Amino acid sequence: MSHPVTSQPSPDTVRIFDTTLRDGEQSPGATLTSEEKLEVARALARLGVDVIEAGFPCASPDDFEAVKAIAESVGAAPVEGRASSEPPIICGLARASENDIRAAYDAVKVAKRPRIHVFLATSPIHREHKLRMTKEQVVERLVRMVSYAKSLCDDIEFSPEDAGRTEPEFLYRAVEAAIEAGATTINIPDTVGYTLPEEFGALIAGILANVPNIGRAIVSVHCHNDLGLATANTLAGIRNGARQAEVTINGIGERAGNTALEEIVMALRTREPVFKLRTNIDTTQLTRTSKLVSVRTGMVVQPNKAVVGANAFAHESGIHQDGMLKNQETYEIMRPEAVGAGQTLLVLGKHSGRHAFAVRLRELGHSLQGEGLDAAFARFKVLADKKKRITDADLEALAASEFGRGREYFQLDAVQVTCGSNGMPTATVRLRCPDGEIRTHAAIGTGPVHAVFRAVDEIVQAPAELLEYSINNVTEGIDALGHASVRVRAAGDDGRVNPQRGASQAPILHGHAADSDVIVASTKAYLVALNRVLANMHASERSASSPTAAAAPQKAVS
Amino acid sequence: MSHPVTSQPSPDTVRIFDTTLRDGEQSPGATLTSEEKLEVARALARLGVDVIEAGFPCASPDDFEAVKAIAESVGAAPVEGRASSEPPIICGLARASENDIRAAYDAVKVAKRPRIHVFLATSPIHREHKLRMTKEQVVERLVRMVSYAKSLCDDIEFSPEDAGRTEPEFLYRAVEAAIEAGATTINIPDTVGYTLPEEFGALIAGILANVPNIGRAIVSVHCHNDLGLATANTLAGIRNGARQAEVTINGIGERAGNTALEEIVMALRTREPVFKLRTNIDTTQLTRTSKLVSVRTGMVVQPNKAVVGANAFAHESGIHQDGMLKNQETYEIMRPEAVGAGQTLLVLGKHSGRHAFAVRLRELGHSLQGEGLDAAFARFKVLADKKKRITDADLEALAASEFGRGREYFQLDAVQVTCGSNGMPTATVRLRCPDGEIRTHAAIGTGPVHAVFRAVDEIVQAPAELLEYSINNVTEGIDALGHASVRVRAAGDDGRVNPQRGASQAPILHGHAADSDVIVASTKAYLVALNRVLANMHASERSASSPTAAAAPQKAVS
Repeated sequence: MSHPVTSQPSPDTVRIFDTTLRDGEQSPGATLTSEEKLEVARALARLGVDVIEAGFPCASPDDFEAVKAIAESVGAAPVEGRASSEPPIICGLARASENDIRAAYDAVKVAKRPRIHVFLATSPIHREHKLRMTKEQVVERLVRMVSYAKSLCDDIEFSPEDAGRTEPEFLYRAVEAAIEAGATTINIPDTVGYTLPEEFGALIAGILANVPNIGRAIVSVHCHNDLGLATANTLAGIRNGARQAEVTINGIGERAGNTALEEIVMALRTREPVFKLRTNIDTTQLTRTSKLVSVRTGMVVQPNKAVVGANAFAHESGIHQDGMLKNQETYEIMRPEAVGAGQTLLVLGKHSGRHAFAVRLRELGHSLQGEGLDAAFARFKVLADKKKRITDADLEALAASEFGRGREYFQLDAVQVTCGSNGMPTATVRLRCPDGEIRTHAAIGTGPVHAVFRAVDEIVQAPAELLEYSINNVTEGIDALGHASVRVRAAGDDGRVNPQRGASQAPILHGHAADSDVIVASTKAYLVALNRVLANMHASERSASSPTAAAAPQKAVS
Repeated sequence: MSHPVTSQPSPDTVRIFDTTLRDGEQSPGATLTSEEKLEVARALARLGVDVIEAGFPCASPDDFEAVKAIAESVGAAPVEGRASSEPPIICGLARASENDIRAAYDAVKVAKRPRIHVFLATSPIHREHKLRMTKEQVVERLVRMVSYAKSLCDDIEFSPEDAGRTEPEFLYRAVEAAIEAGATTINIPDTVGYTLPEEFGALIAGILANVPNIGRAIVSVHCHNDLGLATANTLAGIRNGARQAEVTINGIGERAGNTALEEIVMALRTREPVFKLRTNIDTTQLTRTSKLVSVRTGMVVQPNKAVVGANAFAHESGIHQDGMLKNQETYEIMRPEAVGAGQTLLVLGKHSGRHAFAVRLRELGHSLQGEGLDAAFARFKVLADKKKRITDADLEALAASEFGRGREYFQLDAVQVTCGSNGMPTATVRLRCPDGEIRTHAAIGTGPVHAVFRAVDEIVQAPAELLEYSINNVTEGIDALGHASVRVRAAGDDGRVNPQRGASQAPILHGHAADSDVIVASTKAYLVALNRVLANMHASERSASSPTAAAAPQKAVS
């Protein structure tokens, strides 16, 4: 009980609770390294989010450490570039078990404003099939677990999972009991993305009208996009009294994802006269944060994505006739500047120094240091020799390539390829191996990338299967950097417990890299992915041998 | 007046009006060739859409011909694979001018069920800034133009553009006048994607309650996704009495796009007990149609896209623990089979013949014939030699590569590349030129693709700037086909009139190609794009010299 009770927000402010690092990171293949999570957390703090759900600490020892690192470096002191001097609340998710709650608290407690988020399903289908508990048992457990969490931490959020399909009367009873036990935020999830806006709005209104002690908690909404209604449902919840929205950048998340932060923030802002509500988000950072999350998670943003898609404001480009200025007013409801779109600045050239480079990277939200910075700067100089104009997009690609690679078991020493329409694509790859040896292998393939990957496979021998491979030219112009992204599925188990399903899964891991040569970028990206497969195997082994951090199996929870 | 009045749908059916080929194709860079439009139209007919808005015939002579070709081949006789023996209604868009309406009618009249869609803005901001007309002038013009359209064709749709920002009383008056003049469908667009679901639902309810003759028309809704609310707004309109939804596959369209067909159809179906409404869509074709449109337009679908994203059902994959079957029920509201997801079948091998190949392609919705089929089959045999398993996804990539390339001014004869980490990426390209000559050029670049593109540029000399370049591995497995997509901006003007803005734009054209060698695929895709630039220049010249088909400038309309 060492932390003060979190101050209640003013009634005209909607708290933005970002779960990109928890629910978003559960997307297949969106797995991030601890370094990448920290980078995203810093960007979220600068963006102005009120609460960062940093992870599910009980998923694995690595997840625990990642949440702790975020609590220490983003949650404990003012964050450079954040409008508020108050750091964001750092939240850890926990199932309704002492083990989970203790782990969550231990991970977030170093933050200035820690929060534990406890959840337990309340719907009939979950009670019967997943929990095998009666209503009474559900209430008893949630009271016991929220009370336990409250004994550790003042700021407690409780979620009745699958609230949208729970009997209203039982939902009111469960919520009331959770508040009585100490919950200060009640989050209402539409777990399966099933409800319609009128229904979800009515659900929130019903809770506010029928739970006697609801005035002691903030009501939160958490929607999924399976029917394309996450934004509308979230706004319906807010109009009916919710004052916290749980969202992710770009709407990433399992299946069709979560509510997109940028859509909620811009809808509230654009229709402020209707909602009469505000958020603490610096909207001019939306585009930049969207790009960062897209590159880090490998989850592309479609061009027709609302607010942050490449075409969101594209009706402005390429128009060269008179009279377009007045037409802009007639067809535009947001200015691109409001979300920080289209601000590609030419800032650096071949004579720019290391300091200028580091400063600009930091302004763009990348906190490279030490060896990472050295390597990125070396690559910047090489690129500046080849390419006249170094844009912010180039810098983003350089930083993305150098950042968060995790441990490099195998390192690229050299790659060489010959290919073309006459067949026989041939690749030679030379790698530095974990034992310090240099090994070289040549292979042919159906194409140059296939040849490279085969040569790499011969040396690395990792148990992984390629799922997806893409190259994007992330910057404008024909001499741009190529950005390669690779997604592989590893054999076996990811050693991470999924908070809802309990089960761990065959891990899907991605790698990305940028280079002016797409074949080199592809080789590096593939190595990043394979190195993650190897790191994951080792983490999995550690996890199995560590009783305290090993997550409780599903049965212990239910 | 040679066509019968279109029968009114039963009140429990929502008509699906697909505007992928009109509003969707207006997305920057989504431009399709006439052949590609026909292919998409066939897929839409098979999918079961009630109305295909095939284009804006007055945009350019090419647009006119494309709409006419669709009316002839998709709109005039039963379509193979379509549940109904009745072909879809084929609709052409027209501004409120005789020239536009005449062109629209001439393009669609050969269809069994032709429709003219006339629009005129009614909101104050559009009246004042774009049209410079009074309310009286707006009503007078729409009555005159709807009457003129009705003299040509019985099935007339009228849209009061920017209805969402129009004074309700004036909107009712305009709608009543349009129906009196002969409109049988009244479409209410939220042109700028500004309204909230409650507002849009109230707008539709208001029209049904306040327009005396509304019973003689079907009310339609047309929403945009700028705030992420297109699906919710469309459903709100339907709940309030609209019985036609204007949508696009994957929600493509200008800016943040239109309402996604697949989301509306699956929301109505999943929540049928609430809506008590049906559509004529064969939902098992949704995934396939989504992929076709994505490949043809070059508009990627993000993995977390509702219904058709790669992850939409991905919570099912990779789970290998017991008890997942029961958990599927708890976390799933739609079955993947319902939308035709995950049906990758291994159908063909290296011994498969040309007939089996053509049959399977047709089943997948590709109507390659003659030389296109020959070329695709030749490439299939080459691929089958390299790759053991030929999947449907491979076939899709092969067909996409061979289909709809348009005229090939420059053809690839050979390409050869050497690259790698030691620098000096070098490409040699040999092209067959329009004059029949073979020209060869070597170039170095910052990477292999840059080197190839430079070598191509030296020979082709097209006035175009590279905007975007990407390679995707569209099929599973490391020996998969690489699918390259290129987007270029041509100098000058696209010679196409934008229906809303009047202005033509600097054309953005894309090219795609598939090959087992990503460098070869990239070379081909770039050539497709550059050939389109050249074709566009020629079309533009034709357009300028053809007075009848040249679209009326904006002032003649307003």
